[in-house]
Amino acid sequence: MAPSTDNVAARLDLITQRIPEQNISGLELIEASLKAEGRNPRCFWATSPTGKREQKMGVKSNWTSADLIVVISLLDIYSFLDNVKYPMEQVLQRMHYYKFVISAAMEAIGIPASKVQFVQESTYVNTPEFTRDQWRLCTIVPQQAVKDAWDRSYNPDMLSPMFCPGMQSLAEEYLDIDFQFGGADQAGIFGFADRFMPQLGFKKRGHLMNPMLPNLQGGKMSSSHPPNTKIALTDDAETVSNKIFGANTKVATALTNGVMASLRDILIPISHLRTRIGITEGQKSFAGANAPEGTVFSIKTKSGEEHYSSYEEVEKSLHDGQITVEEINTAIAGAFNQLLATIRKKFTENEEWQAVTKEAYPVDA
Amino acid sequence: MAPSTDNVAARLDLITQRIPEQNISGLELIEASLKAEGRNPRCFWATSPTGKREQKMGVKSNWTSADLIVVISLLDIYSFLDNVKYPMEQVLQRMHYYKFVISAAMEAIGIPASKVQFVQESTYVNTPEFTRDQWRLCTIVPQQAVKDAWDRSYNPDMLSPMFCPGMQSLAEEYLDIDFQFGGADQAGIFGFADRFMPQLGFKKRGHLMNPMLPNLQGGKMSSSHPPNTKIALTDDAETVSNKIFGANTKVATALTNGVMASLRDILIPISHLRTRIGITEGQKSFAGANAPEGTVFSIKTKSGEEHYSSYEEVEKSLHDGQITVEEINTAIAGAFNQLLATIRKKFTENEEWQAVTKEAYPVDA
Repeated sequence: MAPSTDNVAARLDLITQRIPEQNISGLELIEASLKAEGRNPRCFWATSPTGKREQKMGVKSNWTSADLIVVISLLDIYSFLDNVKYPMEQVLQRMHYYKFVISAAMEAIGIPASKVQFVQESTYVNTPEFTRDQWRLCTIVPQQAVKDAWDRSYNPDMLSPMFCPGMQSLAEEYLDIDFQFGGADQAGIFGFADRFMPQLGFKKRGHLMNPMLPNLQGGKMSSSHPPNTKIALTDDAETVSNKIFGANTKVATALTNGVMASLRDILIPISHLRTRIGITEGQKSFAGANAPEGTVFSIKTKSGEEHYSSYEEVEKSLHDGQITVEEINTAIAGAFNQLLATIRKKFTENEEWQAVTKEAYPVDA
Repeated sequence: MAPSTDNVAARLDLITQRIPEQNISGLELIEASLKAEGRNPRCFWATSPTGKREQKMGVKSNWTSADLIVVISLLDIYSFLDNVKYPMEQVLQRMHYYKFVISAAMEAIGIPASKVQFVQESTYVNTPEFTRDQWRLCTIVPQQAVKDAWDRSYNPDMLSPMFCPGMQSLAEEYLDIDFQFGGADQAGIFGFADRFMPQLGFKKRGHLMNPMLPNLQGGKMSSSHPPNTKIALTDDAETVSNKIFGANTKVATALTNGVMASLRDILIPISHLRTRIGITEGQKSFAGANAPEGTVFSIKTKSGEEHYSSYEEVEKSLHDGQITVEEINTAIAGAFNQLLATIRKKFTENEEWQAVTKEAYPVDA
């Protein structure tokens, strides 16, 4: 049975909410995939195992309610070609680490495992069909188009990264996905796919770009940046608390402050999700025990507890002096630590994950 | 049994004769391969199926006497990536065409089929091992090093040719060859192999570069140049004659004149070879019937016939007015047509070759 019009509109809204209009291309393709009969739309998320996984992965948790399959490609070949530094063996260990940490984070957030499909990139890249299409692609792609597809700050000297935009684009065809999701730094690669995939006879896909989440210090977040600029999914409670208090020291907004952005783009969406999909043990929303319906975040104050149904209300309350920076930091650290406790517990119980971590990050493990 | 020192020296001389010293690298590696017990040295010749095959392929026929195996890689993938114009299907037809024409030419010259081993490039390139090594290579090769490896006149825009130097270099390992032979335009690629193969843990190979044979008009010879600049192996007798008379119109030397260079670098070496390996039906040396021993080329004159034991004698005779340009052209055209008659006959008898030619060169077939 085809989904009802109302249902399609509601799901499309879940998918596109918080994504600026100019960050969406092929909206009609996404909509069409929601209308398809007997098939869950497939959304592609490519993740390159580099540094230890940080908090930003929680952002699109609301999709869980949109009846999607999130296809997560663990980019082993891509990462090997892109980093030009770590041997393939270590990249593979990092890939295993990523799978463990992403799975645990999904569980912590409350996303059912049935909604997620992990694929190791090399399983489809190392096939004669993919290789042939990659050669075909390379004969129609000017070298300059590859450079244009990159984030401008990134202009590598080596030959191997030149393949990466093509591999990520071809994955859309090989994983049979309906749309691809990435950060705003993927604009060039998504444009590359739009331009060249139809020239190979493959269909266009929808593309969605999440605005980049600032790091705790306010700059761009990246796995390769210093640890104090982001919360790692394996940080202990004290580290999380210190990072938040160290970064959020005065009244600020999500526009420039990474801690406030985390509240808006991670914690409150997760709280929304948990309210929608039902709360199970260890997956409470971030509302206090006695909060009224519709609360997505509660903050303890000297005089009691404040309840909020949106991020905007929290920010206004902070600016008006109803809550202090210290109080909001305590609430945010508490929410993160509630989330991360599930991940830490998984890590402690999983000897394979621990072993993989030592191989993947020998220096800082 | 290891070959005797005299034998090694003689064979090394056969291999390196007519190659300037500065065009040889790794001479000690070549010599070592000649000394190896129970194994014929393997010499690599990579040929890229582009335009119709021209005369230059005859140049190294003297190697036949050096107890080598000439491994000829028919570069299907390389050519597809390099030309960025013809579809893979057509490149494969051209590859089949090349195999037919090279085999026929070898037979015409008098090279035993047992000395030659054809390999289709894709059979070793499209393997997981080669792919993995190619990725490894690309992570250590700067983009600029690829551009430096090319002939300077050639600076393609597309991405695909960037792979080619690496593929040709890795072939040395995958085909287990002792040395590679190419034109002087391969200097950059041979330097590329010398630089990067040891970094991958592979051994260095010897490299030999033939001086470039000028085309009939005196410029560089290339499959992609106009037909009148070279003799195609499938030209008919009249065409051969017209091309030679059209190009060689005054007393000249092999330095600037393609016809004289053909005499020095193709016809006389073949005549030498035929004298050494024995003359069979249809494979006469280019000495007249009554020529004294040691003759490698005879030219009919108004007053009879002149016999020469070296190219230098022919050139001197022309300069001294003992023979005319017309007489030398007639002799050269006759020798080429004797060679090509064998190829033409093969072509006429081989329906598969004819069919392949139509597919490979649909416009000018």
